[in-house]
Amino acid sequence: MNANPKFLSATATVDAAAIAPLPNSRKVYIQGSRPDIQVPMREISQSDTPASFGFEENPPIYVYDTSGPYTDPNAKIDIRSGLAPVRANWIAERNDTEELSGPSSAYGIERLNDPKLAELRFNLTRLPRRAKEGKNVSQMHYARQGIITPEMEYVAIRENMQRKEYLEKLRQSGVMGNKLADLMGRQHPGQNFGAAMPAEITPEFVREEIARGRAIVPANINHPEVEPMIIGRNFLVKINANIGNSAVTSSIGEEVEKMTWAIRWGGDNVMDLSTGKHIHETREWIIRNSPVPIGTVPIYQALEKVNGKAEDLTWEIFRDTLIEQAEQGVDYFTIHAGVRLQYVPLTAKRLTGIVSRGGSIMAKWCLAHHEESFLYTHFEEICQIMKTYDVSFSLGDGLRPGSIFDANDEAQLGELKTLGELTQIAWKHDVQVMIEGPGHVPLHLIKENMDLQLEQCYEAPFYTLGPLTTDIAPGYDHITSGIGAATIGWYGTAMLCYVTPKEHLGLPNKADVKDGIITYKIAAHVADLAKGHPGAQIRDNALSKARFEFRWEDQFNLGLDPDKAREFHDETLPKDSAKVAHFCSMCGPHFCSMKITQEVREYAAQQGISEIAALKKGMEVKAVEFIKTGAEIYHKQ
Amino acid sequence: MNANPKFLSATATVDAAAIAPLPNSRKVYIQGSRPDIQVPMREISQSDTPASFGFEENPPIYVYDTSGPYTDPNAKIDIRSGLAPVRANWIAERNDTEELSGPSSAYGIERLNDPKLAELRFNLTRLPRRAKEGKNVSQMHYARQGIITPEMEYVAIRENMQRKEYLEKLRQSGVMGNKLADLMGRQHPGQNFGAAMPAEITPEFVREEIARGRAIVPANINHPEVEPMIIGRNFLVKINANIGNSAVTSSIGEEVEKMTWAIRWGGDNVMDLSTGKHIHETREWIIRNSPVPIGTVPIYQALEKVNGKAEDLTWEIFRDTLIEQAEQGVDYFTIHAGVRLQYVPLTAKRLTGIVSRGGSIMAKWCLAHHEESFLYTHFEEICQIMKTYDVSFSLGDGLRPGSIFDANDEAQLGELKTLGELTQIAWKHDVQVMIEGPGHVPLHLIKENMDLQLEQCYEAPFYTLGPLTTDIAPGYDHITSGIGAATIGWYGTAMLCYVTPKEHLGLPNKADVKDGIITYKIAAHVADLAKGHPGAQIRDNALSKARFEFRWEDQFNLGLDPDKAREFHDETLPKDSAKVAHFCSMCGPHFCSMKITQEVREYAAQQGISEIAALKKGMEVKAVEFIKTGAEIYHKQ
Repeated sequence: MNANPKFLSATATVDAAAIAPLPNSRKVYIQGSRPDIQVPMREISQSDTPASFGFEENPPIYVYDTSGPYTDPNAKIDIRSGLAPVRANWIAERNDTEELSGPSSAYGIERLNDPKLAELRFNLTRLPRRAKEGKNVSQMHYARQGIITPEMEYVAIRENMQRKEYLEKLRQSGVMGNKLADLMGRQHPGQNFGAAMPAEITPEFVREEIARGRAIVPANINHPEVEPMIIGRNFLVKINANIGNSAVTSSIGEEVEKMTWAIRWGGDNVMDLSTGKHIHETREWIIRNSPVPIGTVPIYQALEKVNGKAEDLTWEIFRDTLIEQAEQGVDYFTIHAGVRLQYVPLTAKRLTGIVSRGGSIMAKWCLAHHEESFLYTHFEEICQIMKTYDVSFSLGDGLRPGSIFDANDEAQLGELKTLGELTQIAWKHDVQVMIEGPGHVPLHLIKENMDLQLEQCYEAPFYTLGPLTTDIAPGYDHITSGIGAATIGWYGTAMLCYVTPKEHLGLPNKADVKDGIITYKIAAHVADLAKGHPGAQIRDNALSKARFEFRWEDQFNLGLDPDKAREFHDETLPKDSAKVAHFCSMCGPHFCSMKITQEVREYAAQQGISEIAALKKGMEVKAVEFIKTGAEIYHKQ
Repeated sequence: MNANPKFLSATATVDAAAIAPLPNSRKVYIQGSRPDIQVPMREISQSDTPASFGFEENPPIYVYDTSGPYTDPNAKIDIRSGLAPVRANWIAERNDTEELSGPSSAYGIERLNDPKLAELRFNLTRLPRRAKEGKNVSQMHYARQGIITPEMEYVAIRENMQRKEYLEKLRQSGVMGNKLADLMGRQHPGQNFGAAMPAEITPEFVREEIARGRAIVPANINHPEVEPMIIGRNFLVKINANIGNSAVTSSIGEEVEKMTWAIRWGGDNVMDLSTGKHIHETREWIIRNSPVPIGTVPIYQALEKVNGKAEDLTWEIFRDTLIEQAEQGVDYFTIHAGVRLQYVPLTAKRLTGIVSRGGSIMAKWCLAHHEESFLYTHFEEICQIMKTYDVSFSLGDGLRPGSIFDANDEAQLGELKTLGELTQIAWKHDVQVMIEGPGHVPLHLIKENMDLQLEQCYEAPFYTLGPLTTDIAPGYDHITSGIGAATIGWYGTAMLCYVTPKEHLGLPNKADVKDGIITYKIAAHVADLAKGHPGAQIRDNALSKARFEFRWEDQFNLGLDPDKAREFHDETLPKDSAKVAHFCSMCGPHFCSMKITQEVREYAAQQGISEIAALKKGMEVKAVEFIKTGAEIYHKQ
């Protein structure tokens, strides 16, 4: 998997697979109210409908693009320099931050001055920033002041995904008048369980949602390279990819490649969960090259600093770690402040105890000291740090169930209640919050998780790991959890943390990362469709139309993974001629139901009974309601 | 993929991969009320719990075994001779069938007498049977007479899966007294939507369910090799694998290998959807070597007989095909008798028209002749044939939606209503029926499908293809549909027809078959857990316990795919020592949450607050309910 065991900063190069263009795709930028708001999207062009189906132009469709400048052929990519700081000016012009003379954490200074790390270190020339004394630089704070930041406008444009423009182009194509646009924009009304998704996202709506805590825009002032994105139940469901090395395996270079690979396929966020050596340096490389928000679990690194002895952790070491990471630009911190002493013994009744690493560390600390966790007792001080850099909370579910047996138990649900209390405290500080969720949960108990979270955490965005809906398929937990993820996304979860096929078995490689990402893109989109997210069905409609019209290339390219679709098709029919053939190897040339359907449609059109076919003939047809008339045999028109 | 392009009957051999033993597994047979009822199961042995966790014996668990004699080292496998006819005596002793002098269909006779086919032909020495004049040999007919057949007793034993015996062994192990058995047998109460699953399946319950049409046992009298299985909402959710060649690709040998491969991984049923040359001969090879029921779509072959011209189809050709296939031993026929003339024009309004091959053939016939389909008009005659051989109906959903756009439309729901009417007719003849379902359906519209089916088809078993919950992931439709399959299984679907990653793109090879099967085994089990199927959680509990105790080999072996789990684990930690290590490459040796949890548990045990740990010490402990007391800090005991 392109391992770089001898990773050296002087020779680091981008993974060639990350910068290859996607087929028939073009990076476009939609400009906002000012020239420096340039929102990226991927435009996928389509071929025309073949004459045999009645010629039609199929305008390009736009899809959400998380891949950053890597897929822009005009961008100069050099991972040794990192990405361009697209937000730098927005941050500077708010005039509420100051440049530091260097890192202010003890550990940050120590690493910077360690000559042994020189050959590994990312060469960052920019200095870290923090809020000026007394200032709060969180997006939530601005939102509550009534300020629409460029970040907010950016995500509004991004969420709308040029849907209006696409449908307008369909209207203008004139081939079928407005009817084709109506057909291709049509979708099933969803079941939204109380979500409130407007047909068009305005910057003001974004501001309101952030102000009331129902959405977050993770965007540390020290991560100016980030392309802003939003997480909330009234926006598109997002996905997170976990990467990170462990003491056993993988290098800095491999982790950077996993990040660029994950965002290529649709990762909206990436968490760096490294636990091995060089956590600090690995993180720097990832952040500087990441256009998506980066999350971490700071307690992992704090534990390394005390040589793995949980009982030796202190608030001071943890605090220094938060500042170290905040000044590197981490956009959200998982903090397991809900693991309270009183909940710990409850886990001893479980089949699989505590499976969250952060949770188990804090549980051990609590028991060893027989004290309430320092994350809980120092929570307001943590909030002070968060608002100084605009780091968002991801309140960790340290007591999430690790097996179906333990799902929805007292320990888990007790912690959830505490996370709700902590949410209120964070919001008092105008600090952005999302809530982490399980874990392993059988399908019928997922709703309870979502309902309790909405109620007890006041609609703060839910961010769940799966959940896995059975324990019996090691090697396939992307699937056991994809089922749960689609379901909980439908119910209202804002972001789904992927699970790869390697879960429970080993550290994912690039192939696993892609399998996890695609599975979760599916889950998120299935949830959007089920919620009735406005416009969500456009891509399904376009792909199905391409499929029906045997536009094979378009079918591949409109899908989540054009490479895989093409590869599968070509396994049996590799010739170019097969890409326009009116059959595939599933049925062979003489036996295609879609082909026969086309004949049925033509026949029906002769009878004047096909809406679509009639439209193509420019006829005005009233829908014929056969079933409702109860006619035994249909009536010729 | 072990292609056998030069398949010859004289040299045909079994796929070596199909007969390799599964790790730590043993084929056992549970005897019924008579010595010739021998119900196969797979017994998976486990290692003991390591002393560091408190020594415990972990008795073997039993899993449902669809693999037939192939995984029995004592069975003599020769695919040229086929499997032993385990049901032959049961059929004979009922004394209601007669042996024919040879095939009675015109086509069957023609193929038998064609010397060019000699080198391809399976050498069947047994003669076909049919019901004696005036007799009805369906399992439903016996059930309604109050007769419990050996087939019914067999499936009762099979469904119980030795759960009582497993829990009894746990009780007897004495290590933790009865408590361990209680823990390991514990499961969440399900949400069953009106299913009625008894804790123990009795032969009488099986009979009742078949008699009222709520379950079927597909078991053609000419398929005596079949190991009986049951399909119904009050039994374990089953899965079907589609195989079959097309005009473009694959040979007889490949299809036999796909069948043995599919049942190795858990296929409960196999449908042979061949459309290419030698359909008759391919089917014979598959049936003679299949321990699972085989389904077909007879109209495919009928169409071949009229050179692909749907309008040339006649009732006579179709009838001859039914008899031809019934005498070979096909256990269920998909028959698209619900595609009525009045529904056909409704599909012209669709985005993707008719995507069922059978449906499109019948639609074309209806339009060409401007007549009601001969499947509909001759339905009672079809019932006569079905009860003569005990072939079950799988009433085809010829108008299932082929895209999210078309889901739950008038055409689809109109056909469903007709299928309900046909169910009543079939039941009048005591013919077993299941109902096929969609297709492409967004997640939130799946429930409507299930509810309508239960109501309009009177709880006849529902058998759905997926449904696929989005159209945008060609290459991953096992996953888009696995999400829908788990969901509809939970709601009450009795059998899930798998979708492979190659769906929409090409014909599945063996790797695709396995991916489809495992995904659907997951979906079926997720549904069983969510419904609260008695004992469904035993395997999850056992696997999670093994996981928590770092019994790596047991974790692999208890899973659905031990080979894949082991392979993934060994990618990073190949040494044998890693199989007993208290860590994996996900976190490395110094950072395992499960290890830390063990320390928490030990600590809690010292305080007398862990149920499990205390049990191991032989203590009687009252559960300590910390949250309920509202204590801020837990109380030492």
